[in-house]
Amino acid sequence: MAPPQIVVPANSVLRDCTVTTAARRIFIENISEFIPGEVRLKGWIYRLRILGKTAFVILRDCSGEAQCVIASEALGDHKLKVEDVAEILGSVRAEPRSKTGCEVDISEIRVLNRAGQRLPFQSAAQAESVGLETLIQYRPLSLRTEAVGDIFRMQAALLASFRDALNRRRFTEIVTSKIVSGGTEGGSNLFEIKYFDRVAYLAQSPQFYKEHGVAGLERVYETAHVYRAEPHASSRHLTEYYSLDVEFGFIDGPEDVVQFERELLTDIFENLNQKYGDVIKKYRADLLPSMLGVACWEFDACLEMLRSEFGRTDLEDDLDPEAERQLCQRAARETGIPAVFVLGFPLAARPFYTAPRGSSGAASSFDLLFQGLEITTGGQRLHLREDLEAALRSRSIEPANFESHLAMFDLGMPPHGGFAIGLERLTCQVLNLQNVRQAVLYPRDRYKLTP
Amino acid sequence: MAPPQIVVPANSVLRDCTVTTAARRIFIENISEFIPGEVRLKGWIYRLRILGKTAFVILRDCSGEAQCVIASEALGDHKLKVEDVAEILGSVRAEPRSKTGCEVDISEIRVLNRAGQRLPFQSAAQAESVGLETLIQYRPLSLRTEAVGDIFRMQAALLASFRDALNRRRFTEIVTSKIVSGGTEGGSNLFEIKYFDRVAYLAQSPQFYKEHGVAGLERVYETAHVYRAEPHASSRHLTEYYSLDVEFGFIDGPEDVVQFERELLTDIFENLNQKYGDVIKKYRADLLPSMLGVACWEFDACLEMLRSEFGRTDLEDDLDPEAERQLCQRAARETGIPAVFVLGFPLAARPFYTAPRGSSGAASSFDLLFQGLEITTGGQRLHLREDLEAALRSRSIEPANFESHLAMFDLGMPPHGGFAIGLERLTCQVLNLQNVRQAVLYPRDRYKLTP
Repeated sequence: MAPPQIVVPANSVLRDCTVTTAARRIFIENISEFIPGEVRLKGWIYRLRILGKTAFVILRDCSGEAQCVIASEALGDHKLKVEDVAEILGSVRAEPRSKTGCEVDISEIRVLNRAGQRLPFQSAAQAESVGLETLIQYRPLSLRTEAVGDIFRMQAALLASFRDALNRRRFTEIVTSKIVSGGTEGGSNLFEIKYFDRVAYLAQSPQFYKEHGVAGLERVYETAHVYRAEPHASSRHLTEYYSLDVEFGFIDGPEDVVQFERELLTDIFENLNQKYGDVIKKYRADLLPSMLGVACWEFDACLEMLRSEFGRTDLEDDLDPEAERQLCQRAARETGIPAVFVLGFPLAARPFYTAPRGSSGAASSFDLLFQGLEITTGGQRLHLREDLEAALRSRSIEPANFESHLAMFDLGMPPHGGFAIGLERLTCQVLNLQNVRQAVLYPRDRYKLTP
Repeated sequence: MAPPQIVVPANSVLRDCTVTTAARRIFIENISEFIPGEVRLKGWIYRLRILGKTAFVILRDCSGEAQCVIASEALGDHKLKVEDVAEILGSVRAEPRSKTGCEVDISEIRVLNRAGQRLPFQSAAQAESVGLETLIQYRPLSLRTEAVGDIFRMQAALLASFRDALNRRRFTEIVTSKIVSGGTEGGSNLFEIKYFDRVAYLAQSPQFYKEHGVAGLERVYETAHVYRAEPHASSRHLTEYYSLDVEFGFIDGPEDVVQFERELLTDIFENLNQKYGDVIKKYRADLLPSMLGVACWEFDACLEMLRSEFGRTDLEDDLDPEAERQLCQRAARETGIPAVFVLGFPLAARPFYTAPRGSSGAASSFDLLFQGLEITTGGQRLHLREDLEAALRSRSIEPANFESHLAMFDLGMPPHGGFAIGLERLTCQVLNLQNVRQAVLYPRDRYKLTP
């Protein structure tokens, strides 16, 4: 057998970076199918253990890790190191002492690209021990750590489950413009865009468009960024976040929307438990709960509960983060699920298109609090043009300013409602993360515009 | 039996808009399961035929159409009309003369919301006879027409198939910021955002982020808007379009990317043919083709072909729309598929991160032309930091300006490549549409900022 060969690229345009013999590259996950035989692997050097005679190279790709061995002296002074990008040619054999049940005897290593000499951390590190700012600054490296990789793989799975659950319920995915001529909620907190010789804004919600979508297709959803020019830099807020927006027609009241969200989340959570239970268990004591039994409490009743049980006399028109935690605590005790829908917020604090709930000044709108954090706002919307006009006037807004939107209500608009889930917040609550920035590849806030 | 009842809402906040007796609303598609029995339907009045004694009301919801009947005199002067939103309670029975094999005897109709008296067209209209501007202006109504509804249901199916095909190939969906501090291609054609006290831009491509993603997760994709401040208003261009972005590591050359796209599109098209063949056949003579046999021609060879076959002596560094059509025509003759990958465009005309192809000034980048239109740009990217620095310098750009991006290439960057498909253009080519605006709910161009 020929001695193992190590090839390091010259520092120049790498025109041909492949090993020239043997088979196509295979994913590491499949190597056991090739016992005994030749395999070509490509990935990152994840761990490197050089003992007296033998060196162990753990190579990692998107499918798994492979234990590869080579005589230590063959490594010579090639300075192979962790995080280098490498191609390994070798023969695979069964090896019961290896985690994967097999091992690759290296016949050739080719370094496809060197990692730098001084990296801020290694991908085999416990990401928990690395600061959040550093993880964000070095996304390629942090994504290779198991913990951070898990977050974004789970987020992708969440997204896929969300869309899938809606597709199975007759919803149509829509794509709507994020460059708009005005706001859906009266014009504050909008980012301004220079649009040729005009001023435009970044959409703060697809609300109007999804309502138009309901009048056309009955059931629509969109997964997209929304933008809020709020000068926050808290652990809960972002200026750009990803909104899972749902809207559907022919509801009888906000309770239909609440019930729909219970079923939707239960469906998503069951799917995640089934496919990613092992990942979820790294982050939570239990798998994700069924949401079918989540309570729905009236806002006024919540205020009363907070007063009597937690001595909160400071709340009037809204809940604060502390109240959200307190209500989830109480809900957990009563229903076994640390989540609650709060329905009937004061109408005055909700956008003009919100339907009233009775005549006492309450709104047919709700928040879903999950593990102490608001992850959803939703409700029934007004669907009669004259009601919308009256709602605008009662807020001292001239209906003519919204005429192009109001005109859509003459085209056959069903009673409807919907909700929006913040993807980053939902990811946080599913994986028990503390800061919403942990669940965004590239967070944006008052101060952060890079990377 | 009591006489049928018709209820029309008062012009005020509609607090309780439901029929108070009988069953939950069911989707029209399922009515035959209820023969003989009571059903409650909700939808739009799609057609209305009032004969001497009998009136036929065709009600439509997101699942189908139902033929409902009522004595003409019972309609009285309630002025029920097409596009009104209605709830119908009635008993369903088998009726072989009806398209769906059953008919509903109406016992109660409740109008949930009146449509306006003068609508620009009806949802039962042939959308082809309505001008594109009108269809865009009245999206709720145009989405209810079969033809326009088909376009956006097909677009949603395309999106779902795209994501599904990638998920099955070990790709991870990523979400990256659209608010960026600079451009990926040198800074022209960017929309400027007022970001608190700073200037930011709308991302013209997720290119850098998806490359970082590859260094972390090996295979990534994103489906999202991208923005180009180009003063076009052509049938092919939009300032905001939806990009299906794919990037993956460990390629040997651009041919790997081409082959991957052949397989991906074939997979998507097969799925669409299978699930939506009846819709596709309304728009095309044949189902969508397999893309496995799509030719890949060198750019220089294409110029030569265009010269010799079409007398084109005016092309040098790029193709024009006419050349794209001519090449697809030629490809159709040679391969049976009106599509071709053109590989090896002049490097100078491609972004700095493009890998060269040989040393003759060609780029390892390609376009995919499909039925006469460019729907994809892709290729292999440079993955060595020193090559990127040299490429920047050769374009008189100081590498320090891109340092935060270049630093990511020290973290273990595999050889990689990818591509981006314009969703609107792909939708057009799948359904033989002539103007990209037909495939966008709310198009944006130099002049268009509403609705």
